[in-house]
Amino acid sequence: MRVTQKVKKMLDWYEGENPGVKANLARILCTGKLAGTGKVVILPVDQGFEHGPARSFAPNPAAYDPHYHYQLAIEAGLNAYAAPLGMLEQGADTFAGQIPTILKCNSSNSLASSKDQAVTAGVQDALRLGCSAIGFTIYPASEYAFDQMEELRELTLEAKSVGLATVVWSYPRGPNLDKAGETALDICAYAAQMAALLGANIIKVKPPTAVISLDAAKKSYANIDGSTLAKRVAHVMQASFAGKRIVVFSGGEAKDLDGIYEEVRGIRDGGGNGSIIGRNTFQRPKEQALEMLDKIISLYKNGD
Amino acid sequence: MRVTQKVKKMLDWYEGENPGVKANLARILCTGKLAGTGKVVILPVDQGFEHGPARSFAPNPAAYDPHYHYQLAIEAGLNAYAAPLGMLEQGADTFAGQIPTILKCNSSNSLASSKDQAVTAGVQDALRLGCSAIGFTIYPASEYAFDQMEELRELTLEAKSVGLATVVWSYPRGPNLDKAGETALDICAYAAQMAALLGANIIKVKPPTAVISLDAAKKSYANIDGSTLAKRVAHVMQASFAGKRIVVFSGGEAKDLDGIYEEVRGIRDGGGNGSIIGRNTFQRPKEQALEMLDKIISLYKNGD
Amino acid sequence: MRVTQKVKKMLDWYEGENPGVKANLARILCTGKLAGTGKVVILPVDQGFEHGPARSFAPNPAAYDPHYHYQLAIEAGLNAYAAPLGMLEQGADTFAGQIPTILKCNSSNSLASSKDQAVTAGVQDALRLGCSAIGFTIYPASEYAFDQMEELRELTLEAKSVGLATVVWSYPRGPNLDKAGETALDICAYAAQMAALLGANIIKVKPPTAVISLDAAKKSYANIDGSTLAKRVAHVMQASFAGKRIVVFSGGEAKDLDGIYEEVRGIRDGGGNGSIIGRNTFQRPKEQALEMLDKIISLYKNGD
Amino acid sequence: MRVTQKVKKMLDWYEGENPGVKANLARILCTGKLAGTGKVVILPVDQGFEHGPARSFAPNPAAYDPHYHYQLAIEAGLNAYAAPLGMLEQGADTFAGQIPTILKCNSSNSLASSKDQAVTAGVQDALRLGCSAIGFTIYPASEYAFDQMEELRELTLEAKSVGLATVVWSYPRGPNLDKAGETALDICAYAAQMAALLGANIIKVKPPTAVISLDAAKKSYANIDGSTLAKRVAHVMQASFAGKRIVVFSGGEAKDLDGIYEEVRGIRDGGGNGSIIGRNTFQRPKEQALEMLDKIISLYKNGD
Amino acid sequence: MRVTQKVKKMLDWYEGENPGVKANLARILCTGKLAGTGKVVILPVDQGFEHGPARSFAPNPAAYDPHYHYQLAIEAGLNAYAAPLGMLEQGADTFAGQIPTILKCNSSNSLASSKDQAVTAGVQDALRLGCSAIGFTIYPASEYAFDQMEELRELTLEAKSVGLATVVWSYPRGPNLDKAGETALDICAYAAQMAALLGANIIKVKPPTAVISLDAAKKSYANIDGSTLAKRVAHVMQASFAGKRIVVFSGGEAKDLDGIYEEVRGIRDGGGNGSIIGRNTFQRPKEQALEMLDKIISLYKNGD
Repeated sequence: MRVTQKVKKMLDWYEGENPGVKANLARILCTGKLAGTGKVVILPVDQGFEHGPARSFAPNPAAYDPHYHYQLAIEAGLNAYAAPLGMLEQGADTFAGQIPTILKCNSSNSLASSKDQAVTAGVQDALRLGCSAIGFTIYPASEYAFDQMEELRELTLEAKSVGLATVVWSYPRGPNLDKAGETALDICAYAAQMAALLGANIIKVKPPTAVISLDAAKKSYANIDGSTLAKRVAHVMQASFAGKRIVVFSGGEAKDLDGIYEEVRGIRDGGGNGSIIGRNTFQRPKEQALEMLDKIISLYKNGD
Repeated sequence: MRVTQKVKKMLDWYEGENPGVKANLARILCTGKLAGTGKVVILPVDQGFEHGPARSFAPNPAAYDPHYHYQLAIEAGLNAYAAPLGMLEQGADTFAGQIPTILKCNSSNSLASSKDQAVTAGVQDALRLGCSAIGFTIYPASEYAFDQMEELRELTLEAKSVGLATVVWSYPRGPNLDKAGETALDICAYAAQMAALLGANIIKVKPPTAVISLDAAKKSYANIDGSTLAKRVAHVMQASFAGKRIVVFSGGEAKDLDGIYEEVRGIRDGGGNGSIIGRNTFQRPKEQALEMLDKIISLYKNGD
Repeated sequence: MRVTQKVKKMLDWYEGENPGVKANLARILCTGKLAGTGKVVILPVDQGFEHGPARSFAPNPAAYDPHYHYQLAIEAGLNAYAAPLGMLEQGADTFAGQIPTILKCNSSNSLASSKDQAVTAGVQDALRLGCSAIGFTIYPASEYAFDQMEELRELTLEAKSVGLATVVWSYPRGPNLDKAGETALDICAYAAQMAALLGANIIKVKPPTAVISLDAAKKSYANIDGSTLAKRVAHVMQASFAGKRIVVFSGGEAKDLDGIYEEVRGIRDGGGNGSIIGRNTFQRPKEQALEMLDKIISLYKNGD
Repeated sequence: MRVTQKVKKMLDWYEGENPGVKANLARILCTGKLAGTGKVVILPVDQGFEHGPARSFAPNPAAYDPHYHYQLAIEAGLNAYAAPLGMLEQGADTFAGQIPTILKCNSSNSLASSKDQAVTAGVQDALRLGCSAIGFTIYPASEYAFDQMEELRELTLEAKSVGLATVVWSYPRGPNLDKAGETALDICAYAAQMAALLGANIIKVKPPTAVISLDAAKKSYANIDGSTLAKRVAHVMQASFAGKRIVVFSGGEAKDLDGIYEEVRGIRDGGGNGSIIGRNTFQRPKEQALEMLDKIISLYKNGD
Repeated sequence: MRVTQKVKKMLDWYEGENPGVKANLARILCTGKLAGTGKVVILPVDQGFEHGPARSFAPNPAAYDPHYHYQLAIEAGLNAYAAPLGMLEQGADTFAGQIPTILKCNSSNSLASSKDQAVTAGVQDALRLGCSAIGFTIYPASEYAFDQMEELRELTLEAKSVGLATVVWSYPRGPNLDKAGETALDICAYAAQMAALLGANIIKVKPPTAVISLDAAKKSYANIDGSTLAKRVAHVMQASFAGKRIVVFSGGEAKDLDGIYEEVRGIRDGGGNGSIIGRNTFQRPKEQALEMLDKIISLYKNGD
């Protein structure tokens, strides 16, 4: 594994971390077709938990098999693969060492009668499965936010102490936010800031819209230009310690290829570190998915 | 104990587990008349807790004695016997080594004023009683689901660390599900998927009906054929990591023999791994129960 | 201490336990005038907590002194003395080795604004006070039942690991049960069954009436003869692992001597293991209490 | 430190305790002007927490300084000084070894929106500050009573295991008690009994009035003479294991000197072990407080 | 680092602490332009968490970068820099040893649906980041106050055991307090007293107004002169163990320079130990902030 100057400089941002955490960040940054560029594309597959198996995998039944996702991520030359406990257990040995994995440690589901998540895995699991990082979702603004932050804090402390990196999905939702507010520019920037303050090494947020949601924030945004996705991404990066945290943006709901590529250009031009893209990949036939991911990677790598 | 090629291949599915867990799965798979076939029939006796002693055992008073169930499972040539703490304590020594046991670690009861379960045993108990696995029930969709999943996660982690297998009863119920929804095809498949994602080694679900319960899932099921039990079981197996988890189906309420055999044929033809069948066995006189179990085993073993 | 064949056979029932637990059960079974008979009479004194000091001890003021109860139990030749922490602390040294003690680990009180109990002692206390067993009350059917069962499970596991026996007071009450239901035959049998399943070594229930409380259970009781106390006790014993658990019956509210003796005959004739009798003893002058206990013991020992 | 026969006899009451706990009780009993008499006067200063600094200390501003209270207790020749963490931290070194200290481990405050207390210190703090005992308040009858008892149980177990004594403030209050009930004779006796049962070494209750509060207790009190404070104190002592626990009575709200002395005579004549008296001391100028304490001590020591 | 007589005398106040805690207090007291004077100015930057990134940093975008705040505090010659986990992680190595840091261990945020805080860091984090102290906010009077105090107690105990100092932000708010009450003189004094009693080494409160909020306290304040800020600060110092705890006052909302300087004079003249001032510094251009801080320091150092 070659660690480029670009990556070395990024690792320097994480000056609070021990060499173990930095080595695992380096593994993620220096794997796949984007190795060493500072850009990352990650495959997350927790939709079987979140939406159920048929809604997730029926469009491409090969994806019912956990091995499929390892293979897709490896063949596409991605930086890492993130999934819940069982998904990683059913491939950790076969694909050991072939791609960094991120153990998603909490999960919600469509049957749930509350808007919380359950903690379904932990640092000991990540260690025995050879993962590079743990992943955790918080819902700032929800009535469970403080509990989730405290769960995250405990997992993060334990992960850091054994040299694992921490990836935080920061998705605001809750009684004080309407649907538009969940992806508002001020809210996405706030979500990234909170994840950074909580000690996240890699932050996942949604691509922000031009909406400003909090009344108290409107004055502050009077002079912040949110007219394009690139500019909004640039603001989110600013809110992530002036760009000194790795921030990736989710792909969200399935959409057409042009929409996806346009979004990637915006993330790239705004200085975002990359994409974390699930349903848009594994719900397509493998060849199409590989083609799409190749295009995305090339957008991040070479521009267009 | 002879471990067949068939079983070795199944153990390979559990690539996240240590040799201790695999050895205990092998013990279950290689015991009794179905040893080595990849099929399993398990006797569960937690009805004394769930429904009370008289409702469970008055039809066949010999069954008040915990030894009875050990003997029944051994004589019938079953793969394993699952029961709560006290039931195993009252036979663990007499029948040590004669049949793998599964310690049921949580329980509900008919007097309870809530729809939760109490954790009534744990991994240390399973070890001192010589069990091969722990068993745990979750109620996805209930208001206790996240707590139960977190309890399960802790027990599973501890069990795996000492080489015990984990069996999960995944029974959706709760405010968002009507009675028909609890055994709907999408819900049973989702229940199996969640158990697999939570790290279960053996999954127990109810035989699914043709109902599709979640509105959001209906589109996904447009092209999934659920017209026969065999096809529905096949879908549940698909939802269990493309068939790479052991899934057994419960017998449910007492029914006539033809109904039972017909259900077994559907499970078998759909690729299910077997049955976990309680009241239909121990509420019959022993000779009738042995005869019935012999027939079920022969259906799984030789077809008909 | 002579361990009779009768007692050895009873110890064999506890095949899940280590020699330490069996030795403590043997101590209880082989102490006092009923030593070796398999019958037990136990003195419980937790009424100071439950009802307050004056309501408990004013009828016989000598009983305000914790030493009194040790002396009464020893002089009467009882099998064991059960009490909360402070009561045992104030006598543990003086009477060390003279009678097995049971540390009651949870308690309610008449001032309480909820129907729960507080955990007020534990296994470490029992060890330092030289006890043979811990005691714990559960209220199946109450809104605290699952919490109490989980507290019991943790204490039981710890107790067993250090060789202490576990005595469970199983007293159903709660929103789904009316007053008559609390002592109904089906409910008492269910209470005994749950205590046995939770791992209790000795079970304490109330003497059952002929009432059947749960609608769902009525069919099952159509052929169970509950016409006499002896027959009802026999059913409770059947529900206690076919008689393979030690079950003692509480004396309940103060009553006249004939009522007490009649109840003892019913317990004895139904195969119950004995009585646990508090207010009816220590609220009488000591001479009268000793006389009564002598009669009870003789009923258990020799019949009449 | 001379341990008198009187004190040796009192230490024998605590037969459940290890020599460390007994030595700390001896330190309290054998310090100050009442050393060796079996009587104790303790200075408690937690009013800064309970009522705020100005309401506590403005009447005598020297008392804002934590050293003041150490000095007052030492100069007055008291047996012990009890206070919350910060108060002891600000004097523990200067006055090390000069007077036994009791670390008050929970506290309420006048701003609180609930009637609970917060646990604000623990056994490790008591050890590092050289204390002889921990102190803890329970509110029997409150909706927090069971939680408080469970907190107390854990602290008590830990304290006893390291040789610290336990002092329990037992102050019934809550939805089932009116104001008069909080100091009713039956309630104070019950409060003392519960503290004793919970393992308290020293019990603090309020001086009881002649009121009987619980309907269920009225019959029992028909023959208990509560006509004078001395007789009521005698009943509380009886309820404290027939006088075999050290019980001290609080001074309550500030009152005139004659009222205080009269109360002390009642406590003394009823066999109470002494007073724990805060506001009535430190809210007076030091000379007056010393004079008053001297008189109280002389009442306990020599009678009048 | 030169420890002056003035500082040595202040360290003597902390007689309950081990040398490690005292050394860390000495580091804070003996750093920067106020080194050795007993006065302190601290830069706190938790507004990114509390109000979001743009509201905090958009007025001076250089402040998005965590390094900015380290540099500002160092260049200004402040005593310490306080911030949440991520802020310190992104500078702990670069600025190691250049300024004492305080790890803010709990945080609220503007999206939250409750008025609690989440614990977001701990003592192990503070140790690995080389901090001198932990910081923690309590909201006395809130419905979360007791929980926060118990969280603080556990962190404080752990911090002291490893030689870290404890800084407590004591900000009363809650259902029993109106807005004016939150900064009332009696409430600020009570807030300081509670922090001191909880074991805080450094206390942060708001500058008090002349309001008296609690009815029960009004009588006590009849003779307390609160006519000037200096006199009110003097009363708060009195309530902080007669001035034997370090108390700093927050700057509150952004205001004009004269207002700030006037407040500093009041704090100084009342004997307060200094200021903790965030938004008023980092929301100004760096040169202006340095100029302002220089003036504040000179007010504390030399008077004017």
